[in-house]
Amino acid sequence: MKNKQWQLAQRPVGAPSKDTWQFVETELDDIGDGQLLIKVLYVSLDPAMRGWLNDAKSYIEPVQIGDVMRAGTVGKVISSKHEKYSEGDYVCGYQGVQLYGVSDGTGLYKVDPKLAPLSYYLGVLGMPGMTGYFGLLKTGEPKSGETVVVSGAAGAVGGLVGQIAKIKGCRVVGIAGGREKCDFLINELGFDAAVDYKAEKVKKALKVACPDGVDVFFDNVGGDILDDVLTQINMKARIVICGAISQYNNTTPVKGPSNYLSLLVNRAKMEGIVVFDNVAEYPTAMKDIAAWIQSGEMKVKDHIVEGIETFPDTLMMLFKGENFGKLVLKVGDE
Amino acid sequence: MKNKQWQLAQRPVGAPSKDTWQFVETELDDIGDGQLLIKVLYVSLDPAMRGWLNDAKSYIEPVQIGDVMRAGTVGKVISSKHEKYSEGDYVCGYQGVQLYGVSDGTGLYKVDPKLAPLSYYLGVLGMPGMTGYFGLLKTGEPKSGETVVVSGAAGAVGGLVGQIAKIKGCRVVGIAGGREKCDFLINELGFDAAVDYKAEKVKKALKVACPDGVDVFFDNVGGDILDDVLTQINMKARIVICGAISQYNNTTPVKGPSNYLSLLVNRAKMEGIVVFDNVAEYPTAMKDIAAWIQSGEMKVKDHIVEGIETFPDTLMMLFKGENFGKLVLKVGDE
Repeated sequence: MKNKQWQLAQRPVGAPSKDTWQFVETELDDIGDGQLLIKVLYVSLDPAMRGWLNDAKSYIEPVQIGDVMRAGTVGKVISSKHEKYSEGDYVCGYQGVQLYGVSDGTGLYKVDPKLAPLSYYLGVLGMPGMTGYFGLLKTGEPKSGETVVVSGAAGAVGGLVGQIAKIKGCRVVGIAGGREKCDFLINELGFDAAVDYKAEKVKKALKVACPDGVDVFFDNVGGDILDDVLTQINMKARIVICGAISQYNNTTPVKGPSNYLSLLVNRAKMEGIVVFDNVAEYPTAMKDIAAWIQSGEMKVKDHIVEGIETFPDTLMMLFKGENFGKLVLKVGDE
Repeated sequence: MKNKQWQLAQRPVGAPSKDTWQFVETELDDIGDGQLLIKVLYVSLDPAMRGWLNDAKSYIEPVQIGDVMRAGTVGKVISSKHEKYSEGDYVCGYQGVQLYGVSDGTGLYKVDPKLAPLSYYLGVLGMPGMTGYFGLLKTGEPKSGETVVVSGAAGAVGGLVGQIAKIKGCRVVGIAGGREKCDFLINELGFDAAVDYKAEKVKKALKVACPDGVDVFFDNVGGDILDDVLTQINMKARIVICGAISQYNNTTPVKGPSNYLSLLVNRAKMEGIVVFDNVAEYPTAMKDIAAWIQSGEMKVKDHIVEGIETFPDTLMMLFKGENFGKLVLKVGDE
């Protein structure tokens, strides 16, 4: 049995390109005691992966040259010498961008395909879901009646953040690229308004969409959009820094928020989050999110692309704003 | 009796210049019932005054063209038809940059020249003192053993912030311009280390001065210094945005912190403060600060320049980093 995997060939300067990766066919070793072999079914593609390619101190070790590219995965156990896992189990973990992964169980947990489609475990019930849930509720602290704005609103984290804010009784405004995404936010996800940053002047459109100003801003994007929102914040506003996808492929320095003194005028705060800090509380979040999906209060949109060979191009969809919902790479059949 | 006052002649673009101001001699009207006449003795000169010159929404109304320039003052009541004030009382308020002010008592309070030199009521016992006290303790929340860095450390707010942090058991590092100021911070105010931003590479010097990283940064300066400190912050660091004097006279956009994603990596927060939010608690702060001065734990350095006619040049000392301690303009004799 042959494995295929995408390895990091060299660190990208700016956007990842063909030269960043090498597609390698490898032999599958036999598993030893305490190990299990996983057939990868779905690979999670997330903006954070760009950061893992940089040789810089961050919240996680960089991927090393020659390593299989790190990625969250859902897979099926096809053989096991691990006491906790049996053939046929479905498991979530970080097997990376490859067809098969050997694991000793570290970072692995079982998931149930009967409770939710397997791809959900990489989205609303996975890292993006946990990120949005804890980032919004613990750091954004939205109160009923407040206005919550979210950027990257049609992405994996953004769509969930907006829907949770609606459930908490807020006015919710999404920022996304393109009419189709904006219509989806309003008509399908129940957002109160949406700003199309590709067609509208964000600052002007936000003024209309947020007549009472902005109390919470959940930012996935950074750059000019962060600056535009900073001009509209209310007293004691909370800005949750979840990411800055507009800046990840910069070859020039990151654009810092020029309007950050709005924090001073408005006694507001800007705070960064990393999902891993909340591991102990993941079960609570998953229970809440599952219940909201069950009741129809929360809708889920996955964007599934097939074929491991498409990985380099599919990953770039994130940075071009081409994904519509949680981006997942399907690399194997159940 | 003639009054002399500095009025705003036109709004500056960039740094205030001679054209910004007009020096006007006016008649003193008789005071009416409920009013009092104050002879101004000391005028407070503060970085925030630059912001009041802009015709922009902020935490306080802009000064209007033709108005006497707003400024905190200490003065002596020379006649009164106000039931709460008598001739000979010393009062603190916002009489502005002029020799005499008529007041109806709004924003006025009595001060005691026997308890402290009158200029202290514009510094450690005035707005700068309150700003540093509440900004550090309520927003910075320093804990014993943590490292606190303060920029503008030889200024009115910075010197006080560093000394309070020392009292709270922190390692304290000041950033200031010039060897003389840095020596003063260490030898007179008891700072653990000081970085001379005019002579040293701040980032490199901070690494040496803060071997355990930075837990609290109290920023009066903004610009490159804020970016340098952001590279050195610890997990859950608190950055207090008090001001950004390096940016106030910009004719280009404010330099936003390019390294703000360090907030994300370190789950840190950046929060703005305005002193007026703490009015109800001023008495507590004044009591604490007075006690620290009394016990010798806190030292005070005022930088007093004489003569109302020097106002435009004296104000500019703040933006050139030429003041050494709290900058006060003495305009009258007791």
